[in-house]
Amino acid sequence: MERLRIDLGPRGYPILIGPGLLEAAEVMDEAIAARDVLVVTNSVVAPLYLERFTRALRDRRVAPLILPDGERFKTLDTVAGVLDALVERRMNRDVCVAALGGGVIGDLAGFAAACYQRGVDFVQVPTTLLAQVDSSVGGKTGVNHPGGKNLIGAFHQPRAVVSDTDTLRTLPRRELRAGVAEVIKYGLVADPAFLGWIEANLEGLLGLDAGALAHAIRRSCEIKAEIVAEDEREHGRRALLNLGHTFGHAIETAAGYGEWLHGEAVGAGMLMAADLSRRLGWLEDSDVARVRALLQRAGLPLAAPPIGAVQALELMGMDKKVLAGRIRLVLMRRLGSGVVSGDYPPEALVETLRAHFGVTK
Amino acid sequence: MERLRIDLGPRGYPILIGPGLLEAAEVMDEAIAARDVLVVTNSVVAPLYLERFTRALRDRRVAPLILPDGERFKTLDTVAGVLDALVERRMNRDVCVAALGGGVIGDLAGFAAACYQRGVDFVQVPTTLLAQVDSSVGGKTGVNHPGGKNLIGAFHQPRAVVSDTDTLRTLPRRELRAGVAEVIKYGLVADPAFLGWIEANLEGLLGLDAGALAHAIRRSCEIKAEIVAEDEREHGRRALLNLGHTFGHAIETAAGYGEWLHGEAVGAGMLMAADLSRRLGWLEDSDVARVRALLQRAGLPLAAPPIGAVQALELMGMDKKVLAGRIRLVLMRRLGSGVVSGDYPPEALVETLRAHFGVTK
Repeated sequence: MERLRIDLGPRGYPILIGPGLLEAAEVMDEAIAARDVLVVTNSVVAPLYLERFTRALRDRRVAPLILPDGERFKTLDTVAGVLDALVERRMNRDVCVAALGGGVIGDLAGFAAACYQRGVDFVQVPTTLLAQVDSSVGGKTGVNHPGGKNLIGAFHQPRAVVSDTDTLRTLPRRELRAGVAEVIKYGLVADPAFLGWIEANLEGLLGLDAGALAHAIRRSCEIKAEIVAEDEREHGRRALLNLGHTFGHAIETAAGYGEWLHGEAVGAGMLMAADLSRRLGWLEDSDVARVRALLQRAGLPLAAPPIGAVQALELMGMDKKVLAGRIRLVLMRRLGSGVVSGDYPPEALVETLRAHFGVTK
Repeated sequence: MERLRIDLGPRGYPILIGPGLLEAAEVMDEAIAARDVLVVTNSVVAPLYLERFTRALRDRRVAPLILPDGERFKTLDTVAGVLDALVERRMNRDVCVAALGGGVIGDLAGFAAACYQRGVDFVQVPTTLLAQVDSSVGGKTGVNHPGGKNLIGAFHQPRAVVSDTDTLRTLPRRELRAGVAEVIKYGLVADPAFLGWIEANLEGLLGLDAGALAHAIRRSCEIKAEIVAEDEREHGRRALLNLGHTFGHAIETAAGYGEWLHGEAVGAGMLMAADLSRRLGWLEDSDVARVRALLQRAGLPLAAPPIGAVQALELMGMDKKVLAGRIRLVLMRRLGSGVVSGDYPPEALVETLRAHFGVTK
């Protein structure tokens, strides 16, 4: 079992990573102090893991709440339902809300825990690689609004995160690959040695080797925690975590909602960020080739929809006017060293978009 | 203008108290940094103050949101409506939510501000004495659930509180008196000198003398801030703020919901707490007479419904079993010195209840 402590003074918490943790009663004893537990999960995860997880909670009073699966249920209405469940079951302030599932479940359940009696205990048991490397750190919880994603929410730190790498065996391969894209992101923005490690251990990750997964999850969480902590001193450093996101957003929108997974779009977007960094003289041709090769080996799609540079610019939230003011993008000074910069010639961005979103001949 | 700074490190904020502040543009310039302001108010306060307040906001982009009046609208649904208004008006993270009204508006608007984009600026402009002395300090925001009061909420500190004492001119007299009961509470639990000051200045308070009101509000906020701050070291000290509440709850419930104002019930409950403290030998007969005289001069009702001691006990959440374990009550060691104690003989409580809830002959 790998173990990482997120240091936030009195709100600090452990991240426990390894195979079989979900059914390990002694792990749950460390993670959950409460006698009452509301387990929030969904209709896909519940048949797979709810029983085993409940058994690991032993003689606690456990109430399960099984929500429908999908991002479209990440709404304030669903949170109201979680709060109703807490009230109806007469859970007092000592309750712990446990999120068993992916990022949607974690965001929803965490926000409900933040609001119930102005904040009760919350434990994450993420069952997707994306949630294990992304949602475990940063304290962001919340829901979508018809007017925008994650517009409603709260910062609420979990009391513990338990990442059971065995749960990735039931994760669709495509989602596993999208999670690997996020792992690669941490290497690209912050740690060249970790990037090298990923290159050397990619088969282990995709083959669900428990040791490789645990190391990748641990190091990803560590890097995210460092960047989030530094953000309080160096304002804006947290934006590094958005490597590939602005490009990726254009891909997701161009392809139509739900066609690309978020992690897939970020993966292809990271290649574009590498390409633009090369055009600025920050990366070598060989660096970009290295990024492309790694993403390809991970089985990630790289061909953006052929919509042309002008439309791609628009989908990135830019037009000629904004372009002159230059929107800030996450780029790379070197592989393993991200930088947030608005300081690039507009033509370099247009050329990058032309190369990747170019209309096919 | 009186000025008090609530010291919470980076989350500290000023409380500005005095006549005419609501329409003072320079006061609003200090309180509100944002260019966009969503003013949350209700159908009773809006016709009285919305226009003047909006004028004081000068060239900011101001959007008003007028909610129906009443505690029964203090729900998650209403908060969802406030969030919708923020999204529909495309307010970004730099918006300020201003609560113009009493405690219900402050709790609702503050919770919406806590949840919008994980927390935006929030300014309180309380227009009732109760809100000016109670809701201004402590950071509690939230709404009711059919299963209980204030079950859903967040801690979210305001950026500033602007208490315009002139708004009390339009407050129903009965609500003013209920607010005075809360002011007396601060004297009784924490400051004998302030208690003496209230006795000497009660006519000024009830006569809406601006200087007397400003001092009473300022000192009440100061005392609440001290108690809330001490609570982090001395756990449970915050419970002192509940002087009269457990007795008061029995009164409110016995009389039927809405018959007694909360402050009125707390007032009569404080007299019962004084009486029980006397039976424990902590207060003199003359102390209790002094409390009674002050509450009577304030025009507060003191005659609890004649339901008998047994039912009163039940309404306090006690039965014979709990009584043996003795629920903790806020009592007074001396006038001006509250104490939270479960260490009293059960008979003393029963006698107190018999004296106040006794069935009339």
